[in-house]
Amino acid sequence: MINNEKPRLAIDMDEVLTDTLRKFLTLYNRDYGIAMDIHQAPGKELHENLPEGVNGQWKIYANEKGFFRDIPPMPDAIETVKALSAHYNVYIVSAAMEFRNSLEDKFDWLGEHFPFIPWTNILFTGDKIISADILIDDRVRNLVHFNGRKLLFTSPHNLLVNEYERVNNWKEVAGLLL
Amino acid sequence: MINNEKPRLAIDMDEVLTDTLRKFLTLYNRDYGIAMDIHQAPGKELHENLPEGVNGQWKIYANEKGFFRDIPPMPDAIETVKALSAHYNVYIVSAAMEFRNSLEDKFDWLGEHFPFIPWTNILFTGDKIISADILIDDRVRNLVHFNGRKLLFTSPHNLLVNEYERVNNWKEVAGLLL
Repeated sequence: MINNEKPRLAIDMDEVLTDTLRKFLTLYNRDYGIAMDIHQAPGKELHENLPEGVNGQWKIYANEKGFFRDIPPMPDAIETVKALSAHYNVYIVSAAMEFRNSLEDKFDWLGEHFPFIPWTNILFTGDKIISADILIDDRVRNLVHFNGRKLLFTSPHNLLVNEYERVNNWKEVAGLLL
Repeated sequence: MINNEKPRLAIDMDEVLTDTLRKFLTLYNRDYGIAMDIHQAPGKELHENLPEGVNGQWKIYANEKGFFRDIPPMPDAIETVKALSAHYNVYIVSAAMEFRNSLEDKFDWLGEHFPFIPWTNILFTGDKIISADILIDDRVRNLVHFNGRKLLFTSPHNLLVNEYERVNNWKEVAGLLL
């Protein structure tokens, strides 16, 4: 049964809990010698900063079994979410349906890094048609239809967005919500 | 981007789109000789109608890879959901997180039987903290916190529930919503 005593805090995975961009760059570096510190133009997706011919490869990477299993967590994410769990009913909400092979990897990744989040509090979605008090997400498309407080988690692709309350890292989330 | 022109209709999977009870009975029949037409007392879960010693087996079945892959769709479900898709933004919302091994099976099952539902409209959840206009579900625990119109899809375990608008089958859903 849903715990109604604490406000619901929904948190995205890719680029918020997990450093997915770094994982893509690691593979681009390994396979095509792309520099790990390639210039990421503000407001652009990673693939828009890559040379033609390799810039479509990210979809193949993301479809591979195992891609989402060993991504490093974002700095301070684990400790902060654990602390937030005392004050909020924390839900992890990831748009995992785009990549069928990500489902088990994301589930297992959460079990390894966030074992204190029960299965009842995990949602793998397409559209994030969720009902919560706060949503932390790096994608405007997920925030735009959300009815609660919207926190845009900084990622290079959203640096030109000004319409949302912004958090740059998990220390800032802690400062704001704890 | 979410289609906002049509009302959102959220539909559960087990015991609503899929005849999961029949799948459990098929395995209980195969392994323990339980009759397929065992008396199912109104208001009881299947396992509450089974002899001690085998009544916990259902959790082992549900955790097996493949269990959710070949369940028969409910009669008239496919045609009705297809017709509903012309008038509603249909979302499939299944509490799949309880069984890690069900994730890929449920995704593939939907691809086979409901290929007209795009990945954007599939949600695998724990708690169904969703925002929609209508929810069709057989579980009171999923309906109780829902803010829209609640349709209880009949299953033996919910026969004693009187608090909700009830639909007994997909023909009744069609009659009500089309």
